[in-house]
Amino acid sequence: MSYQFHQFNIDSFLKNFWQKKPTLLKGLFKDFQDPLEADEIAGLAAEEQIESRVVYKKQQNWHVEHGPFEEYQVFGETDWTLLVQAVDHYSEEAAELLKPFRFIPNWRIDDLMVSFSTPGGGVGAHVDQYDVFIIQGMGKRHWRVGLQQTMQKSIPHPDLLQVDGFNACIDEILEPGDVLYIPPGCPHEGYAIEPALNYSVGFRAPNQQDLLSSFADFALQEECFNKRYTDPELQATQSPGLITEAETQKLVGLVKETLSQSDSVEQWLGCYLTQAKHELAIEEIEPAYLPEDLAEMLQQIAIWNRLGGLRCLLLADKFFVNGEFIPTEKQQRPFITFLSNHEVYASSDLNHYLTIEENQQLLLALVNEGFIYPLED
Amino acid sequence: MSYQFHQFNIDSFLKNFWQKKPTLLKGLFKDFQDPLEADEIAGLAAEEQIESRVVYKKQQNWHVEHGPFEEYQVFGETDWTLLVQAVDHYSEEAAELLKPFRFIPNWRIDDLMVSFSTPGGGVGAHVDQYDVFIIQGMGKRHWRVGLQQTMQKSIPHPDLLQVDGFNACIDEILEPGDVLYIPPGCPHEGYAIEPALNYSVGFRAPNQQDLLSSFADFALQEECFNKRYTDPELQATQSPGLITEAETQKLVGLVKETLSQSDSVEQWLGCYLTQAKHELAIEEIEPAYLPEDLAEMLQQIAIWNRLGGLRCLLLADKFFVNGEFIPTEKQQRPFITFLSNHEVYASSDLNHYLTIEENQQLLLALVNEGFIYPLED
Ligand SMILES: O=C(O)CCC(=O)C(=O)O
Ligand SMILES: O=C(O)CCC(=O)C(=O)O
Ligand SMILES: [Co+2]
Ligand SMILES: [Co+2]
Repeated sequence: MSYQFHQFNIDSFLKNFWQKKPTLLKGLFKDFQDPLEADEIAGLAAEEQIESRVVYKKQQNWHVEHGPFEEYQVFGETDWTLLVQAVDHYSEEAAELLKPFRFIPNWRIDDLMVSFSTPGGGVGAHVDQYDVFIIQGMGKRHWRVGLQQTMQKSIPHPDLLQVDGFNACIDEILEPGDVLYIPPGCPHEGYAIEPALNYSVGFRAPNQQDLLSSFADFALQEECFNKRYTDPELQATQSPGLITEAETQKLVGLVKETLSQSDSVEQWLGCYLTQAKHELAIEEIEPAYLPEDLAEMLQQIAIWNRLGGLRCLLLADKFFVNGEFIPTEKQQRPFITFLSNHEVYASSDLNHYLTIEENQQLLLALVNEGFIYPLED
Repeated sequence: MSYQFHQFNIDSFLKNFWQKKPTLLKGLFKDFQDPLEADEIAGLAAEEQIESRVVYKKQQNWHVEHGPFEEYQVFGETDWTLLVQAVDHYSEEAAELLKPFRFIPNWRIDDLMVSFSTPGGGVGAHVDQYDVFIIQGMGKRHWRVGLQQTMQKSIPHPDLLQVDGFNACIDEILEPGDVLYIPPGCPHEGYAIEPALNYSVGFRAPNQQDLLSSFADFALQEECFNKRYTDPELQATQSPGLITEAETQKLVGLVKETLSQSDSVEQWLGCYLTQAKHELAIEEIEPAYLPEDLAEMLQQIAIWNRLGGLRCLLLADKFFVNGEFIPTEKQQRPFITFLSNHEVYASSDLNHYLTIEENQQLLLALVNEGFIYPLED
């Protein structure tokens, strides 16, 4: 089951709405078919390693409970919502929903969050730091969305950051196939009118703090920034309690210099941008395939699939997979470009690159790590 | 007991040796008197919160044990050394030894390490990352020091980083009052000829890694760098697996920008440079003095002392004490300069500044925190 946009002008969307204004894209998916049913979502939410929560409101009070969940009777029939993170890691069908959005670079895409809500269910009015496309599946939900505005924050529960109220510029009922685009900072709230499934295509964009702490961790791990402050030109001071402007600038300069070591900076950034934020359903091959096994499989198997949620990135000729830098030779560039830009690989296409020894070794390693696997029809 | 250099040309030392070459300063202290005796050092090493270790060699094997120590018989009569860190935090007499070295800015000075070695005792040949002045007290030690050179590293014990051997440019017996200056990276080894006391005036100089991780911690704590990556001008991509050079530069630029927020950067740096690396012997005043108490004490007490090891710093008009930024008014600048540049404060001098209300409050706070205390003769 693959998904395509219906009459959607990508360029004008990017120009007028992306990171600017929310918009309702009525019927973006024509004759929308849910990739999953509610009980399959409940099945995922029963898994220990899958992140899920139930948000519900009882007598005006908000509650949040974290999965895994065995049953839902305790929450009653109405006013609750089950949310499951990174469903694209666990369901190939659900992961299909991300594909039409690949006009946006992969490093900007985070995951697919799926929510099932009973009538009246929702997570309340809130603001997110990230862009999101909320796809309406089964059922109907009433959504209100506002432009960025000053609002009163409230924290009805430690895990639930809400806003008190906001002026809406969108106030609509979403039906299957409708998609709501919401840029960062825009308040929104959705309540189910009837049992409903929503699929949130979430994005990620780091802030300075995220980048700084990841860069510092990388520095500690790689030990690649160990230039020490020196002052061979030191003059005797009459004011031992002061640090001069020049000394201060030299210290700050030492930190700035780390950011001009482009090789190390590229390696850090590539690892950071490909770190998974949720567990991957990795099934390593034990014992590992040998080169000849792979060669044989390439004849029998037509299509291979990249593991759901696996982040690959090509940054300045450097190849990164799942938070790791994979050194490659210059002549491997076409192959790593192919691997990064696609998620489905025909054996015929793969073979084209496997004339190069290093490409065979790379593919074998990726298959043995469970990052690429044969697609059974 | 105060210490002065004997015929020592500071400027020519800084020009020819500081951070450049080791040098033996024979008789730098004339008629040197040890500020402490060996059993006082042993007394400190019995304290739980004071960092100490014994390094000894038995049948060619090096051993390290960490304090506190109740007795030393177990180590025998020879070939061992007791080393106690930050003795200036715990002994006013020992702290006097740092004073003549205040021609070097305080933020560059670390602490006073005292070692007592039995005949043959030493820590073996090793290299330090920091400058050090090793003052010979009681007894004699044979020191060899080399210029920076390639050496074979060895780790005879997890806590003991040594070098196998090196060419010495200094090979001398040190006698009381002699001082050995060793810049970073220069190998050295000293063995006691008779029971000996050594006082190491140690320095600190951060490297990029130290600065980066401290800066990232500051960012997380203060939440003052939260600008997020945005791409309202995004164009649709045909290569979702790539990140462009421009996007990469924008992300790196976000990190670079943090270093141009001078207010926050100054605040971080000041806190970092005044963080104590060893415990301070703080005795808070309970219940706290009131302003009138302080006024009365200023009449009765002649001299006040800054707590041993307390780091004060004036960085770009910002005042820092013990890792904390203390906001002050413009007109307090003379007072905070006075506090930073001196460690002993005459009441007469203090009174001069106390016409300003904020200075009174600052002094009261510092006294109540045990950072400044009356000196009993
Ligand atoms: O599905 C929901 O109720 C929450 C959706 C949402 O707010 C989001 O994805 O940002
Ligand atoms: O006193 C000792 O044996 C060690 C002195 C030393 O190596 C130092 O302070 O760097
Ligand atoms: Co949201
Ligand atoms: Co040393």
